[in-house]
Amino acid sequence: MDRVDIAIVGTGAAGISAALTAKNRNKSLMLFGSGSLSTKIGGEHRIRNYPGISNVTGIELQQAFRKQLEEMDIPVTDVKITSIYSMGDYFALQSGPDLYEARCLILATGVSAGKTIPGEEENVGRGVSYCATCDASLYRGRPVLVIGYSKKEEEEARFLSEVCSSVTYLPQYSTPVHLPQSVTVLPLRPEKIERLAQEKKMLLQAADQTLYADCIFVLRDSISPGQLVPGLATEGAHIVTDRSMSTNIPGCFAAGDCTGKPYQYVKAAGEGNVAALSAVSYLDRLDHPQT
Amino acid sequence: MDRVDIAIVGTGAAGISAALTAKNRNKSLMLFGSGSLSTKIGGEHRIRNYPGISNVTGIELQQAFRKQLEEMDIPVTDVKITSIYSMGDYFALQSGPDLYEARCLILATGVSAGKTIPGEEENVGRGVSYCATCDASLYRGRPVLVIGYSKKEEEEARFLSEVCSSVTYLPQYSTPVHLPQSVTVLPLRPEKIERLAQEKKMLLQAADQTLYADCIFVLRDSISPGQLVPGLATEGAHIVTDRSMSTNIPGCFAAGDCTGKPYQYVKAAGEGNVAALSAVSYLDRLDHPQT
Repeated sequence: MDRVDIAIVGTGAAGISAALTAKNRNKSLMLFGSGSLSTKIGGEHRIRNYPGISNVTGIELQQAFRKQLEEMDIPVTDVKITSIYSMGDYFALQSGPDLYEARCLILATGVSAGKTIPGEEENVGRGVSYCATCDASLYRGRPVLVIGYSKKEEEEARFLSEVCSSVTYLPQYSTPVHLPQSVTVLPLRPEKIERLAQEKKMLLQAADQTLYADCIFVLRDSISPGQLVPGLATEGAHIVTDRSMSTNIPGCFAAGDCTGKPYQYVKAAGEGNVAALSAVSYLDRLDHPQT
Repeated sequence: MDRVDIAIVGTGAAGISAALTAKNRNKSLMLFGSGSLSTKIGGEHRIRNYPGISNVTGIELQQAFRKQLEEMDIPVTDVKITSIYSMGDYFALQSGPDLYEARCLILATGVSAGKTIPGEEENVGRGVSYCATCDASLYRGRPVLVIGYSKKEEEEARFLSEVCSSVTYLPQYSTPVHLPQSVTVLPLRPEKIERLAQEKKMLLQAADQTLYADCIFVLRDSISPGQLVPGLATEGAHIVTDRSMSTNIPGCFAAGDCTGKPYQYVKAAGEGNVAALSAVSYLDRLDHPQT
């Protein structure tokens, strides 16, 4: 796969705005996200303060965004990026076994409403995984727990059930669960994760129950930015940026809810535009260092 | 006139966005600007990167903005604000003889493409005026020069010709000039302004000519922000803000082109939204200091 100028991660208002502006500036780009764009936007009833479109429903705004991407010939690459590494003069984006390369990066990943589970973050890579596709083979024939924050994670649980000795699934949403009978479904809210180093086991406390497994898969729509991009400066759940939407990593920009409040569509769209133009300037400086 | 919660100066994308969000948050507001909104937007051919509205013409975007203001019951107060003073816990906005009051302020004045004339800024209030309505009476029966940067300034020149002993008009645009015969029209580009203190006269150097008058009126669409709001921190032509769109003056926020590049509609609209929500927080803090 060719290395593109700009990789944009996220298909909410910020990511879409960044893609439109980058395309307008004749940059090659990949836009990673959900083919159905942002679940958050689609779920809005009416948005009353988006300048230029009065009283629009979330679904209408989604449709307008989708139409605009099609007209501008910007496809959405519908994969989940699980890790991004700065390689000096380019970025490597990992999605399971696939790698993508881009000269610069715009993070527009939104912000997950949910907090992390106590004990989760300190055990990532040591018994907590955010990616079934990436880590399933490490737990072949072994028992795992899956905490799924949206219905689409059931597909991951199904896949794990083909590989692991047992799968226990904890749905964190209210719609009915459809999984093979071999998967144990427990509608429990996770309270604490612990690593039992001596036994090489993970422990999950949920309501009155204590569950054990070799790995706990925590599957959310979004991974926290600091987990996604090692070395990225964050403040709580947010990426630190300046007014040009630059982060602490050269060539890495951010836009939208992931950079902080207010969580508003037009704020996100505005930041996406600024991030794209900052990325264009960055590329120009790389290509013409003397100017 | 009642004191409103928020005064917004400017009817481009930033000002309109700020007004929509402020109104949504149930704040009383006044939106000052041109009844025809922004001349800059109206003049755009096609805007290709405004998320949600594909390939829109400037005129269509204007119409969408106007419709939205009407639907939200937000009138535009079509006066030119010439000075704004921070009075501690409120702002006084001056337009000629009229005064308006607001608890906080959002500047969305755009940025004027033209540079100031050498000698202009240091002589404001000492022989250079930005406001015919405000200062005409000071120059009753005396000769004045008028430098007009758009056709609508001809109205000001016409008014001055009724008051002053002579008016010389220097149009800085290419459309035909329609003024009474008593006004001398000279299509010259001004190069330098000087104050001749002893003679109490102003001197204007333009091409090979030297013109003299008691006052030089410099009439542009926008006044530089530092002139408009004494004490406002600026950097070149731009107002200094942080990511919350706060300026150095408590209760004064800014959004859009006046805060710096990129000069893009969706960037301006996003900043207007952020400025309005920052203004709402500021008002909440004033009203509920303990929280």
